[in-house]
Amino acid sequence: MAYLKNTWYVAALSTEVGADELFHRKILGTSVLMYRKQDGTAVAMRDRCPHRFAPLHLGKKIGDEIVCHYHALQFDCSGQCTHNPHGEGNIPKAAKVQTFPLQERYGFIWIWMGDKAADPGLLPDYSPLDDGPPTGVGHTYMHMRANYELIIDNVMDLSHIDHVHGEIISTRGQLSPIVPQVRETENSVFARWEWKQTPPILVLAGFLPHPEKEARHFFDVTWMPPANIQLSVGGAQGDTPFEQGVGAYDLHTTTPETETSTHYFFATRRNHNIHDADFNAMKLQAMRDAFEKEDGPIIYGVQEEMETTDFFSLNPVLMSNDVAAVRARRLLARLIAKEEEGAGGSAAPAARTAAA
Amino acid sequence: MAYLKNTWYVAALSTEVGADELFHRKILGTSVLMYRKQDGTAVAMRDRCPHRFAPLHLGKKIGDEIVCHYHALQFDCSGQCTHNPHGEGNIPKAAKVQTFPLQERYGFIWIWMGDKAADPGLLPDYSPLDDGPPTGVGHTYMHMRANYELIIDNVMDLSHIDHVHGEIISTRGQLSPIVPQVRETENSVFARWEWKQTPPILVLAGFLPHPEKEARHFFDVTWMPPANIQLSVGGAQGDTPFEQGVGAYDLHTTTPETETSTHYFFATRRNHNIHDADFNAMKLQAMRDAFEKEDGPIIYGVQEEMETTDFFSLNPVLMSNDVAAVRARRLLARLIAKEEEGAGGSAAPAARTAAA
Amino acid sequence: MAYLKNTWYVAALSTEVGADELFHRKILGTSVLMYRKQDGTAVAMRDRCPHRFAPLHLGKKIGDEIVCHYHALQFDCSGQCTHNPHGEGNIPKAAKVQTFPLQERYGFIWIWMGDKAADPGLLPDYSPLDDGPPTGVGHTYMHMRANYELIIDNVMDLSHIDHVHGEIISTRGQLSPIVPQVRETENSVFARWEWKQTPPILVLAGFLPHPEKEARHFFDVTWMPPANIQLSVGGAQGDTPFEQGVGAYDLHTTTPETETSTHYFFATRRNHNIHDADFNAMKLQAMRDAFEKEDGPIIYGVQEEMETTDFFSLNPVLMSNDVAAVRARRLLARLIAKEEEGAGGSAAPAARTAAA
Repeated sequence: MAYLKNTWYVAALSTEVGADELFHRKILGTSVLMYRKQDGTAVAMRDRCPHRFAPLHLGKKIGDEIVCHYHALQFDCSGQCTHNPHGEGNIPKAAKVQTFPLQERYGFIWIWMGDKAADPGLLPDYSPLDDGPPTGVGHTYMHMRANYELIIDNVMDLSHIDHVHGEIISTRGQLSPIVPQVRETENSVFARWEWKQTPPILVLAGFLPHPEKEARHFFDVTWMPPANIQLSVGGAQGDTPFEQGVGAYDLHTTTPETETSTHYFFATRRNHNIHDADFNAMKLQAMRDAFEKEDGPIIYGVQEEMETTDFFSLNPVLMSNDVAAVRARRLLARLIAKEEEGAGGSAAPAARTAAA
Repeated sequence: MAYLKNTWYVAALSTEVGADELFHRKILGTSVLMYRKQDGTAVAMRDRCPHRFAPLHLGKKIGDEIVCHYHALQFDCSGQCTHNPHGEGNIPKAAKVQTFPLQERYGFIWIWMGDKAADPGLLPDYSPLDDGPPTGVGHTYMHMRANYELIIDNVMDLSHIDHVHGEIISTRGQLSPIVPQVRETENSVFARWEWKQTPPILVLAGFLPHPEKEARHFFDVTWMPPANIQLSVGGAQGDTPFEQGVGAYDLHTTTPETETSTHYFFATRRNHNIHDADFNAMKLQAMRDAFEKEDGPIIYGVQEEMETTDFFSLNPVLMSNDVAAVRARRLLARLIAKEEEGAGGSAAPAARTAAA
Repeated sequence: MAYLKNTWYVAALSTEVGADELFHRKILGTSVLMYRKQDGTAVAMRDRCPHRFAPLHLGKKIGDEIVCHYHALQFDCSGQCTHNPHGEGNIPKAAKVQTFPLQERYGFIWIWMGDKAADPGLLPDYSPLDDGPPTGVGHTYMHMRANYELIIDNVMDLSHIDHVHGEIISTRGQLSPIVPQVRETENSVFARWEWKQTPPILVLAGFLPHPEKEARHFFDVTWMPPANIQLSVGGAQGDTPFEQGVGAYDLHTTTPETETSTHYFFATRRNHNIHDADFNAMKLQAMRDAFEKEDGPIIYGVQEEMETTDFFSLNPVLMSNDVAAVRARRLLARLIAKEEEGAGGSAAPAARTAAA
């Protein structure tokens, strides 16, 4: 399966990579080791010793360097072998581990898996996640047994909330009749829903002036490649403009593990009750439960039905609610095709949409 | 793997599809949803929404219609979309789910998976199963991790009872020396064994005049495509003709789930002690135990040895006891080849016998 | 995957095949039945009835013969069918099970899976294993989820002991700086390390005159095809020559089950404390623990990283410690290529090193 490579994916929550830990995760089918230098900077390299291919995460960290557990070759953060305990200790030129550029931003560690020079500017700006106290933001990770585009589909078509989700975030059938506004740019797809409902979305209602009365609501979703969806939600009552209402600024982002499994990362920053740590934890758990227990079974069911067959080859019946999701799929396909052409032209874009 | 398609397979026991249930099962590799209309009629359709391929069994039933859980498209029993809650509610022409004809007969729901018009007349007559009180008949379902033809082989060569089965149905070595009478027609293979044994088959013995003395016995098996075997067994003593003896009229029928797993359905109607519900339950459980605990390990062992290799390509050593089973395999192969030729000629019959 | 066929592999520990047992194991991808005749001689045949392919190990032993559980064909030790209970009892000419020559030597049952006549002389002489009381020798079996050559690599490069193993057999960093002496013949690769360490290897130290003082040590490993490694270890202090020191004579030998799983057999004979059954059991368990708990995770990690990709195609960075292991891999590859050429020339040697 072809992935967009010269781009940033989330590799881990910042909190997943502890000071003394050799953290490992398969990303785009490749085993990656991540750890922190003594100054706290995260580094990433292929989780495979170039000698006899032992996973480096089984080894140990000495200062900022990694020692392979099998035969004790030692590597620095640039992947260069710095010590060979064997024979006269000569270091073979080829004794180098591939490293991957990282950026640590917005509570996540982002990784660049491509062969071109990493471009920090390609990372979208999600700085509102950082804007406020830690009790007003939550980050979480979920492992999903489904292709990452099925999760993008899910978030880009929020009409499913009417039908799939329970009380806490129910939109009470109000989204589906709306044809969302959709805009597409060279590297983004945007959709917006605006509606009224009574009572308001429950996770917001308690912070509105009249928790049981009608509220105006909006959802904005902005997909940017490869798999980032910034979602904003808000509610207001009476003449209060949305800017002064209650709401949250969320990020849904997915990183392919394999063709049929995904690392799902989520962050949410709210503008109300921002100093309440208990509420913060409760809300984050409630969102996780919604994704895992309500979306999860459906997405897994779709995965089992589709297996690795290309979505469009199955002739999906598409409707007004699918516009944003379909545009994101098509834009991503074009970007991957373009990257593969640039890489030599031999990898036909069609290859990516064929069944495995 | 090629299956005979324009024919009837058992999809479920009648009792498996409850009044309020969305029952689903994979049949010939395809996910099928079954449920009952308010008038009790069973219907079947593909268990996949044509929109985004969510399994329909995750949804709910409203009257006689099904609502997909993901985005609430609603479908009637003909598979036609009747409600689209999205946008202006237009129903795309393509929004149709494939349906499958059903017949409910003899305690089973039979399904037609082929592309030709369903022909009710192709369902063999197993009406003796219906002839008598409910305490004189039993129906059961077993999931088997083996190709369905291995189960047909098992039942078409009853000589294995001498060697595989325990006391309750033991034939005490009397079947193997017999070369069964075998007859073949255009769409059936029949075999008959007649023998004497002391004591009689134990499950019948208690209902014979002299339970510990010699009895005459017979087995008749009639295979009809695709995978139905009607088995009759009887015992009599002295001058009593078989017609006045004790016996049972059984149906063994298998439905491929995948190339290596099978839905095994069994029904048995007896002509003795027909009002005894406890005996009925005990006998059915004993038969299940024989199939699962005695035949099962051998059939699974054969499956593991053969994997998906064609039976004949392994050059089996065939003997007098194999005649009926081999004729059934060969007739089924001819029927499948004929069906595939009729479907366009491009699918060579040989394809079906090649390893996967 | 291509294996060397006309050679001896260990099929089982002698103790695994009991007097009354139908023992079965998959060897080089083929199911094999082993049992003992009444005179104790072990025999091996394909674990598959030629009739309908039931595993013969599900059957029973009558005298020196095997009865298939499914339809009671009976086979003698040469694989010849001796009884057919069906019909008139004629025995089809083809009713023959493939048998495999065995030799029972050094506490192991060795099997010949090739198509050429078995050559007992090809079995290396490991008679020192037999030389001494039963309390001075141990034999054990471990199932490993890794390709067998990864285990050969492990034992042929003992420098890993410095880094992987715990106190009981630690070499305290002394092996890695040594470039072992390596010698290669037409059918063997030999390596020798000599060094000093304080304290001595702990499993030997207690039997040296000064358990806490420096000792001289050596390791000899001799690989012979297909997968036998004879390992000798010794320790001595002062002027005592190794011949009068303490040591052990071990055999590590592996038998492929599949391309990614291996039967690992180990035997160890020591020259000290040879009448102590408790020590014997403790030492064997300690060695097993070292292989399973210390080598195991690394070897499994390498297997997961490499999957079925050929070792050399991954361009391993090779160093002075790899010489013996690499020579064994290359010699084995040449022997397999030669055998395949001899078998007809159509199987190109390259085929064996391609990914599955």
